Amino acid sequence: MGLDETKDNPLDRLSAWLAADMDGVNALIRDRMASEHAPRIPEVTRHLVEAGGKRIRPMLTLAAARLFGYPGPFHVHLAATVEFIHTATLLHDDVVDESAQRRGRPTANLLWDNKSSVLVGDYLFARSFQLMTETGSLRVLGILSDAAATIAEGEVLQLSASQDLRTTEATYLRVIRGKTAALFSAATEVGGVIAGADEAHVRALFDYGDALGIAFQMTDDVLDYGGSAGSIGKNVGDDFRERKLTLPVIKAVALADEAERAFWTRVIARGDQRDGDLDAALAILARHRTLEATRAEAMDWAARARAAVLSLPPHEGREMLADLADFVVERIR
Amino acid sequence: MGLDETKDNPLDRLSAWLAADMDGVNALIRDRMASEHAPRIPEVTRHLVEAGGKRIRPMLTLAAARLFGYPGPFHVHLAATVEFIHTATLLHDDVVDESAQRRGRPTANLLWDNKSSVLVGDYLFARSFQLMTETGSLRVLGILSDAAATIAEGEVLQLSASQDLRTTEATYLRVIRGKTAALFSAATEVGGVIAGADEAHVRALFDYGDALGIAFQMTDDVLDYGGSAGSIGKNVGDDFRERKLTLPVIKAVALADEAERAFWTRVIARGDQRDGDLDAALAILARHRTLEATRAEAMDWAARARAAVLSLPPHEGREMLADLADFVVERIR
Repeated sequence: MGLDETKDNPLDRLSAWLAADMDGVNALIRDRMASEHAPRIPEVTRHLVEAGGKRIRPMLTLAAARLFGYPGPFHVHLAATVEFIHTATLLHDDVVDESAQRRGRPTANLLWDNKSSVLVGDYLFARSFQLMTETGSLRVLGILSDAAATIAEGEVLQLSASQDLRTTEATYLRVIRGKTAALFSAATEVGGVIAGADEAHVRALFDYGDALGIAFQMTDDVLDYGGSAGSIGKNVGDDFRERKLTLPVIKAVALADEAERAFWTRVIARGDQRDGDLDAALAILARHRTLEATRAEAMDWAARARAAVLSLPPHEGREMLADLADFVVERIR
Repeated sequence: MGLDETKDNPLDRLSAWLAADMDGVNALIRDRMASEHAPRIPEVTRHLVEAGGKRIRPMLTLAAARLFGYPGPFHVHLAATVEFIHTATLLHDDVVDESAQRRGRPTANLLWDNKSSVLVGDYLFARSFQLMTETGSLRVLGILSDAAATIAEGEVLQLSASQDLRTTEATYLRVIRGKTAALFSAATEVGGVIAGADEAHVRALFDYGDALGIAFQMTDDVLDYGGSAGSIGKNVGDDFRERKLTLPVIKAVALADEAERAFWTRVIARGDQRDGDLDAALAILARHRTLEATRAEAMDWAARARAAVLSLPPHEGREMLADLADFVVERIR
C-alpha cells in the first residue's frame, strides 16, 4: 500500500504495511496464551489482548526489523514477546492502581480478582521469556531482560514518588522511562538486532523508541487532566485521584504560592480530596500553564524521535515511524 | 567436612559442603537486589531473603553442578536465579493468599502493601532472567523459562481448583508439580546441564528434583493439618481456612458419607466456616486416616527421589541428596 491513500494516520499505515506479520503475531499470541489445564489463563488474557489495543509496541518491533530487510521468522516471536510483557504489566497495574477502567472496559480484576491478575500476569511474563529464548539470540535476551527490570524498577519508583511533593522532574523522567519508554526502546532495538542492523542504526532505533515512549507518556499525562475518557481509555482525573506526581503537577508545585502549596499538600500528600478539588487543581494548572509546558516537552521528545529514525537509511516504513512520533503528541488538541 | 560429624541433618551437611559457593550466591543476591533509584526494592526483598529460609533450592543447583565436577562460575548465577524466582513467587503468593504469616514473620504485604509485593516480585523475576542470560546457555534459559511458566500455570490451576470438591488426585499432583516441584527439578537439572553432565544423568537429576519437590509439598500439606507453626512457618489450618483442596481433604471427600459430604460442601465449597470446624475436619481426616495415606505417598516419592539420585556416579554429595529426600518427609512425626 502506498503512502498516499491513508496518509493522515500513521498507525493505520503501519497496520496496513505490517498486516501479514501482525497476523502471525496474533496467531502466535493466541497459541501461546492457551493453557490446557488452566482455562482461566486465556479467559483473563483474551480480555486484554482482544480489547482493541493499538498494538503499537509489536508493530514497532516488526517495523524496525523490516526496515533492515529481515525476512523472519523471529521478529514475529519478538513482537509477541513485547505484547506479552505489555499485557502482563497491564494486569499487574490493575492490581496495583485499583483503576476502575482500562481501554474503556472493566479491568480484569473487577471481572475476576486480584489473584488471577497477578498469576496470569506471571504466566505471560514466563511465556514472553520462552518466546524470546526461541530466537536463540543472547543479545536479544539481554536487552529484553534488562527492559523487564527497568520497567519493574520504574513502577516501584513511581510508587515511592506518589504522594511525595518533593518529586523532581528528573525523577518523573526516570519513572516514565521505566514504566513506558523502556519497552518502546527495547521493542525497536530488538527489531534492529534480529535483523542484523549495524551498531549505529541499532542505537538510532533505541533512541527513537526511547523518545517516542517519553512523548507518548507525557501526552497521556496531559490527557489525564484534559482529554476525554474515550481518547485514552481512562477517566479524566485518575492520576489526581491516585495522587500521582506527573509532570503537570510537578511543574505547578514548583510554581505554587502559599495557598496553592497548602492545596497540593492536602489533596496529594495527605490524600484528603473533596468535591470540586479536581476543578480547583485544573484551575491551578491553567494559571501556571503547566499542561501547555508539558505538551511542549512532549513535542520536543517527538522531534527527537523523528530525528533519530530519519538518521536511518531511506525506507517507506521509516517515514511512517517518523509520522508516528508526531501523531502520538497530536492526540493533545 | 566428612559425613560423620553431622550425619543426622543432611541440610546442615549440604550447607557445610557448599558453604563457599553459598557465600558467592548470597553476595550475588545482595548485589542484584540493590536498586540505586528504588530503595524500596531491597527493603522488601531483604525481608524475605534474610528471613532465615533454608535455601534448599539454590543448594540443589550447586550440589548438582558439583556432583559433576563443575568448577564454576555460573552455577552460582543459576543458584541465585532459582532463589530469586522462589522469592518472587513468595511475594506474589502473599498478595494472593492473604496469608498472615510466612516463615513465622509478618508477610511483606502486611509490612508494606500489595502494590510493593507485586512490583518487587516482578523486579526479582526480571533480575532472575538477567542472571540466567549471563550464563550464555540457551538450554538453561529454556529450562528455567519453561519452569517459570509451569509454576504460574500451577498457581492458576490451584486457584481454579480451590473450593472445588470435584478436584481429583491427578489435578492435585499437577498443581504441586507446578507450584513446588517445577522449581526443584529445574534447579537440579540446570546444575547438571551447566556442568556438562550426560543426558541420562541430567534426566536423573530432573527426576530427583521432581520427586523431592512432590514429597516436600505433600509433607507440607500434611503438616498444615498436624504440625506446629514453628516447624513450617505457617499456621495449622491455613489451607482449610483458604479452602484449598489438598491431598488429605481430596482423599477424605472421596471416602465421605452423606453427613461428611455436607460438611465439606459447607466449609470448603461454600466457605461457611464456624468455630470448631477445623477440629471437625481433623476428626474426619483421622477417621479415614487420610493424613497417614498422604504421608505414605510422600514417602513413596521420597524413595523415588533417592533412587534417582543414587543412579548417578558415586560422590559424597550424592549421599547427602539421597538423605535429604528422607529428611524432607521425616518432618512429619
